[in-house]
Amino acid sequence: MNRSVLFSGNTMLKKIIRRRLKQPGLPPGTMIYTGETVLEKVQLSKLEYDEDRLEFRDLGTIEQAFPFKELPTVTWLNISGLHETAMMEKIGEKRDIHPLILEDILNTDQRPKVEIYDNYIIIILKMLYHNTEKTEIESEQISIVLGENYVITFQEKAGDVLDPVRERIRNPKSLFRKKGADYLAYAIMDVIIDHYFVVLEALGEKIENLEQAVLGEPTQKLAKEIQFMKRELIYLRKSIWPLREVISELLRTESEFMAEDLAPFLKDVYDHTIQVVDTIETFRDMLSGTLDIYLSSVSNRMNEVMKILTIIATIFIPLTFIAGIYGMNFDFMPELHWKWGYPLIWLIMLGIFSGMILFFRRKKWL
Amino acid sequence: MNRSVLFSGNTMLKKIIRRRLKQPGLPPGTMIYTGETVLEKVQLSKLEYDEDRLEFRDLGTIEQAFPFKELPTVTWLNISGLHETAMMEKIGEKRDIHPLILEDILNTDQRPKVEIYDNYIIIILKMLYHNTEKTEIESEQISIVLGENYVITFQEKAGDVLDPVRERIRNPKSLFRKKGADYLAYAIMDVIIDHYFVVLEALGEKIENLEQAVLGEPTQKLAKEIQFMKRELIYLRKSIWPLREVISELLRTESEFMAEDLAPFLKDVYDHTIQVVDTIETFRDMLSGTLDIYLSSVSNRMNEVMKILTIIATIFIPLTFIAGIYGMNFDFMPELHWKWGYPLIWLIMLGIFSGMILFFRRKKWL
Amino acid sequence: MNRSVLFSGNTMLKKIIRRRLKQPGLPPGTMIYTGETVLEKVQLSKLEYDEDRLEFRDLGTIEQAFPFKELPTVTWLNISGLHETAMMEKIGEKRDIHPLILEDILNTDQRPKVEIYDNYIIIILKMLYHNTEKTEIESEQISIVLGENYVITFQEKAGDVLDPVRERIRNPKSLFRKKGADYLAYAIMDVIIDHYFVVLEALGEKIENLEQAVLGEPTQKLAKEIQFMKRELIYLRKSIWPLREVISELLRTESEFMAEDLAPFLKDVYDHTIQVVDTIETFRDMLSGTLDIYLSSVSNRMNEVMKILTIIATIFIPLTFIAGIYGMNFDFMPELHWKWGYPLIWLIMLGIFSGMILFFRRKKWL
Amino acid sequence: MNRSVLFSGNTMLKKIIRRRLKQPGLPPGTMIYTGETVLEKVQLSKLEYDEDRLEFRDLGTIEQAFPFKELPTVTWLNISGLHETAMMEKIGEKRDIHPLILEDILNTDQRPKVEIYDNYIIIILKMLYHNTEKTEIESEQISIVLGENYVITFQEKAGDVLDPVRERIRNPKSLFRKKGADYLAYAIMDVIIDHYFVVLEALGEKIENLEQAVLGEPTQKLAKEIQFMKRELIYLRKSIWPLREVISELLRTESEFMAEDLAPFLKDVYDHTIQVVDTIETFRDMLSGTLDIYLSSVSNRMNEVMKILTIIATIFIPLTFIAGIYGMNFDFMPELHWKWGYPLIWLIMLGIFSGMILFFRRKKWL
Amino acid sequence: MNRSVLFSGNTMLKKIIRRRLKQPGLPPGTMIYTGETVLEKVQLSKLEYDEDRLEFRDLGTIEQAFPFKELPTVTWLNISGLHETAMMEKIGEKRDIHPLILEDILNTDQRPKVEIYDNYIIIILKMLYHNTEKTEIESEQISIVLGENYVITFQEKAGDVLDPVRERIRNPKSLFRKKGADYLAYAIMDVIIDHYFVVLEALGEKIENLEQAVLGEPTQKLAKEIQFMKRELIYLRKSIWPLREVISELLRTESEFMAEDLAPFLKDVYDHTIQVVDTIETFRDMLSGTLDIYLSSVSNRMNEVMKILTIIATIFIPLTFIAGIYGMNFDFMPELHWKWGYPLIWLIMLGIFSGMILFFRRKKWL
Repeated sequence: MNRSVLFSGNTMLKKIIRRRLKQPGLPPGTMIYTGETVLEKVQLSKLEYDEDRLEFRDLGTIEQAFPFKELPTVTWLNISGLHETAMMEKIGEKRDIHPLILEDILNTDQRPKVEIYDNYIIIILKMLYHNTEKTEIESEQISIVLGENYVITFQEKAGDVLDPVRERIRNPKSLFRKKGADYLAYAIMDVIIDHYFVVLEALGEKIENLEQAVLGEPTQKLAKEIQFMKRELIYLRKSIWPLREVISELLRTESEFMAEDLAPFLKDVYDHTIQVVDTIETFRDMLSGTLDIYLSSVSNRMNEVMKILTIIATIFIPLTFIAGIYGMNFDFMPELHWKWGYPLIWLIMLGIFSGMILFFRRKKWL
Repeated sequence: MNRSVLFSGNTMLKKIIRRRLKQPGLPPGTMIYTGETVLEKVQLSKLEYDEDRLEFRDLGTIEQAFPFKELPTVTWLNISGLHETAMMEKIGEKRDIHPLILEDILNTDQRPKVEIYDNYIIIILKMLYHNTEKTEIESEQISIVLGENYVITFQEKAGDVLDPVRERIRNPKSLFRKKGADYLAYAIMDVIIDHYFVVLEALGEKIENLEQAVLGEPTQKLAKEIQFMKRELIYLRKSIWPLREVISELLRTESEFMAEDLAPFLKDVYDHTIQVVDTIETFRDMLSGTLDIYLSSVSNRMNEVMKILTIIATIFIPLTFIAGIYGMNFDFMPELHWKWGYPLIWLIMLGIFSGMILFFRRKKWL
Repeated sequence: MNRSVLFSGNTMLKKIIRRRLKQPGLPPGTMIYTGETVLEKVQLSKLEYDEDRLEFRDLGTIEQAFPFKELPTVTWLNISGLHETAMMEKIGEKRDIHPLILEDILNTDQRPKVEIYDNYIIIILKMLYHNTEKTEIESEQISIVLGENYVITFQEKAGDVLDPVRERIRNPKSLFRKKGADYLAYAIMDVIIDHYFVVLEALGEKIENLEQAVLGEPTQKLAKEIQFMKRELIYLRKSIWPLREVISELLRTESEFMAEDLAPFLKDVYDHTIQVVDTIETFRDMLSGTLDIYLSSVSNRMNEVMKILTIIATIFIPLTFIAGIYGMNFDFMPELHWKWGYPLIWLIMLGIFSGMILFFRRKKWL
Repeated sequence: MNRSVLFSGNTMLKKIIRRRLKQPGLPPGTMIYTGETVLEKVQLSKLEYDEDRLEFRDLGTIEQAFPFKELPTVTWLNISGLHETAMMEKIGEKRDIHPLILEDILNTDQRPKVEIYDNYIIIILKMLYHNTEKTEIESEQISIVLGENYVITFQEKAGDVLDPVRERIRNPKSLFRKKGADYLAYAIMDVIIDHYFVVLEALGEKIENLEQAVLGEPTQKLAKEIQFMKRELIYLRKSIWPLREVISELLRTESEFMAEDLAPFLKDVYDHTIQVVDTIETFRDMLSGTLDIYLSSVSNRMNEVMKILTIIATIFIPLTFIAGIYGMNFDFMPELHWKWGYPLIWLIMLGIFSGMILFFRRKKWL
Repeated sequence: MNRSVLFSGNTMLKKIIRRRLKQPGLPPGTMIYTGETVLEKVQLSKLEYDEDRLEFRDLGTIEQAFPFKELPTVTWLNISGLHETAMMEKIGEKRDIHPLILEDILNTDQRPKVEIYDNYIIIILKMLYHNTEKTEIESEQISIVLGENYVITFQEKAGDVLDPVRERIRNPKSLFRKKGADYLAYAIMDVIIDHYFVVLEALGEKIENLEQAVLGEPTQKLAKEIQFMKRELIYLRKSIWPLREVISELLRTESEFMAEDLAPFLKDVYDHTIQVVDTIETFRDMLSGTLDIYLSSVSNRMNEVMKILTIIATIFIPLTFIAGIYGMNFDFMPELHWKWGYPLIWLIMLGIFSGMILFFRRKKWL
């Protein structure tokens, strides 16, 4: 197994266990960012729109973000980069967000979850990318705060997954302009879950290739890659499985920020989530099948090796014994002095040889 | 493993992962047909009947389909071929179908599902065929829209699975003529699920043959075919499993389009669905058993090979050693000059040979 | 594996997949008998009894069966042989039974089920026999129609499982004479489920024998028999598992035909059903254990074979090499001319031999 | 595997399948004792107590048992030995117990269960002993009938498990004297479930020993013992698992014989039951782990055997070939006549030998 | 496997089975401490605080602890060491705690549980430490009694896990000073569960190392360590799994001691618990994967060993046979007297050698 795969294995292990919440004993609500800091500076952008107007601004400081416009304008505040906890505190204060929620947003090892409060709804999801360079799956946590006329999104990095949403908002005829903040929150979830299919497609291709390779020649390297893929799926499943509950809780919730006509859209997202989870399960089954093929190939190879050894040894060991007999130096060995002794011995050996060949034919080894 | 099987493996993988919903980020309700386009032109047919009359027409354009006749006439509009999205939009408009539903109808990788709306019920199912040429299972998505006095069915191809339904409607004494659109929808589901049994029968025969073959001679090819069958079952299960919920939700639903006396019929369909799911589970168990037989056969063969090698080697290696001893050229080897040395050596060897044979007999290897 | 076992394997496969409901597309309620026709003529018998009187008649035609006597007499109509669909239709008409129910009664591949209607209750069960000749489990479907003062039973063959019930009814002091048709239906279910224990006992004995045999000598034939037993259990489970729901639904049902004092009896039957299901699960676990013993025995045997080969080869290959050395024909080999060369070589060989034996002793191979 | 273990295996199989309820077809409520008859005579004892008085009597006949004293006295009637069905009938009559319940009490292969009736509660449990002589687990069924002011217990044998309860009742200051029959029933259950821990401890020690042995040397005998333990656990689980429901149903029941202040005591028993079930599950996991260690040990040993064979064969087969070359009798073999031919050949052989050793070193086989 | 690991295995076995509740038959509520006694003397400390004041005292005797101050002061009584049952009785008496609860507190093999009473809530948890010396996980039971204005904690040893809580209480601006005893109980649970992550991190590192080692060279020792880790996880799971129910029952409970504004805090703890359980499951999957890699490595090694043996044997056995032929001593062997016989034989041998090499190349063994 080459180092790069090992390396990515370790990275994933880290993804699973390292990002601990905080030092045990710190007060609850202590905000510590547990992800990597990839952006030098936190990026803030604010998008305000209603049916007629649209205003987009990159903000220098968090103070510029507030106050939000009144209804019916929808305000979308996007924060990329979570390492400035002071900024988080300010937002929490302005929008009256519980410190424990802020802690959850910063702790990027959360399970996907939704929490319904009186004045806002918090949705925490994973965004998944397929890093084509490192050939592994990367994830980023995105937290969506949905209030009466605003959506605040918290990303770890400045990604481009949400760009299509911005694009569609800019279109004055898009549904966004007629609907409220709830539709914006839905659209963000939708685009994230749609993105899962890209990751699944890449994984599926990998599994397909693995299977082709195993059908070709089963090497130890392949076995390790199958194991590695299995673990990627474990990680994927862990990230996506709770999503079912999240969406179905959203569906059940009767909140004043969620218009009734959002239900078909949420149901659609729910269907996609089920489809993603189903596909992951199918991939697990397929990988198990591939591992089974690998194992049966290995044992078949072994069997073949043993057969060849057995055929050669079983034919030649008795022949060598006969040759050994007439290599003995006894004074009185009459056969040695027969005129046709040597040809006779050859005949006998040929007989044994043919008999053995016939025996193996009958056993269907040849 | 021959190429054709590999090919069909890939095809199935595609069935599982390729048909992605749409490019991530497209607005919800964007209609993109994700199946294959096998028909040059979309085929439209309209069947209108009540207790006394029956009218069947192949339509050239979708405009001819509307308006539907009033109650108590039942109208069945069948659309084969889903690649003309403009037509879909028109139907959606005329019958007031939510764009997300139309998107689901076009996206042929849906899980079976039912959705109950105020003015119609949507049922999405899989039709399964056993393609005898490619020896693999093919599936087609069929969507049924059930309204107050009409049924609209959307198929990917022009198949003949629904022909028996048409035949029975033509019979003026059939139950269809006395019942409403709900009975028509039931009959379509019934004929589709009945068709599953044909597929299961073909699969069962294959499994039976596989088992016979494994009991005969366990080859690597068989192991791969078992894996391939397993995956066919995974795919089948994925297509059929959600059907249980679909039918049981229909049973629970109290919709005005579903007459009360439909319940026994739906219950019957439900029983068949359970039977199909049960049979698939049984097939899985049987395949696992076949794989176990295969593995134990392989390891038994290995054992047999090893035994033969061991018997031959264990008998002849000591004999060859003895022959080697008396092939040595020491000046002073008294045995070599004994008169009965050579016969004696033969006797000793015969003794060892017999002893070994007896030993293996006692070990029950011979 | 001998043919007879293979044959019975096929038969069971047929039990699982062949008896399809009907040609897909036939109208629902089309009555087609899917079982084997073993009786030349359908046998009809009618038993009428109340507290004081009892009347038993074998009937020639179905017309003689009706009308049933009025309350409080209990009428038991038993039909053995289901291939005369005309007769079924007549019964359906007389007792107002839904055509789909009649279809279910004729289709002998039903899952056990109960259906509660206003004027009758339908219970469909499997009767199991252990065919001692073919050494396999056979099943027969029995359908019980329980009405206000009558029970109609439909059997595939004329069996003797129900004889004890008839015997007990004949006893004027039996509970039957004081109770209604519901008690009769209970007694029939009870005797059928009691019969399962006979089948389980036979199976248990087989498993016990298998285990003894595997502990003795693990042959490939045993592995196949274990697989075969496993499949028998799969089939058994499929037949019996749904029974739990059936009985518990009967327990929950508040029907006017089910007297309140029947509850303890049904509860008793329910307990027996649980016990049967438990035993089947235990058998599965035991068979898995037997397979594990088999596999570990095979690998142990292999190990033993390898050890013997290794001991013999490892001892004699070096010795043969030494003999080979002194069989060389070099002109200048001083050892060959030593007086004690030959005895010395024997000593060296003995030393190697002893060393090897000691080595294997220390490795605990000898 | 020695006979004693096989024997006990059979015994357990009998425990699982033999004790069938009755001949199929016997009327329900037919009382047949299905256990072993170990006591010559049924032993009867009666204990009556209230806050101030206590009276204990061994009874000769069942007639002496009745009538019970009135409230507030608690009467405990204990019957050891179930083979006298006439006595059972009498008790049933006196205390108005349903014949099916009596049948259950006599059929000693019941699952643990509780049944709540208007005038009494029936609790059926298993008492477990660890028979140190036969080194296997034995079980005995105990049935507890709890009425308003009495408890009747039915045991198969005269055991001493309940002695501590009697001892505590004798103590005039014990809680018993202040509480009613419900507390007595609880105390009996408590002492029985406490006894399970003794059995579990013995089992745990066995598993520990097995594991130590497997870590030492993996023999076939150990594999069989692991399987045997597994089956003991299957049996244990089957006996104890339903107990959870039993106790939790008692907890839910609002019966007039169960004082409200019994709840904490029942909850305590429930906790112990969960703990027992948990421990059994843990034991199963531990045994699976032990089996895995066994299997990996066996395959490692095999590997080691193969390595030794390969090392010896791979070193000496080429050397023997070289010796064979110079044992040929060609007239013209110049090497044979070289002065340093023989030493040279030794050098070459030494070279090959060293090379091979180095090769195996690099492969880390030596 | 070295002794230390075996030893710790035994210790864990003891953790699982030894600490039995009490001798069967002892009256319920008999207080027997089942843990180890590590402290010579029980340590008592009392902490009383409200918004303005804080008083901490180490107590000599339990009498000094009572009475607690009145509301709104919060009193935290911490008892380290459980072996003085007289002290327990006194506390039980003073605070009116049910004897069965006291028994549970002393029996340190409880499952985590919560019990809600009218005047207090009992929470029993496990504290986990990763003992870096013995490289194993140790656990300690902590019981929390939450009353209206007090918290009593019972620990087995004097640990420092709770120190951060004390530290934070000392801070006059901490949330503790504004909130009641319920917040204190929450904070104690929170710090304990936070500590689980430390243990998980240590375990994760171990698993990572194991995996690296297995990828390097699969030794038998590693297989045993994998098994050992598996069992640690079984134990961990057993200790933590019930915690989910505990916390979710606390969440559901509407007790007067639990302020409404505690819910978000409890929800936070619940999320952490789910995360811990998830991580344990992931670890189990990873360990299984590691075991699979181990097994496939072992069988691959075996395969490689067999290949080398087969290559060497298959090449040299036929060559040795040829050498044996010309070592025979027949009088009439013309080849022996040919001038080019010897070189010819070498050529033939070279041919066979090259053929074999080519054959193995084509088989991709070389």
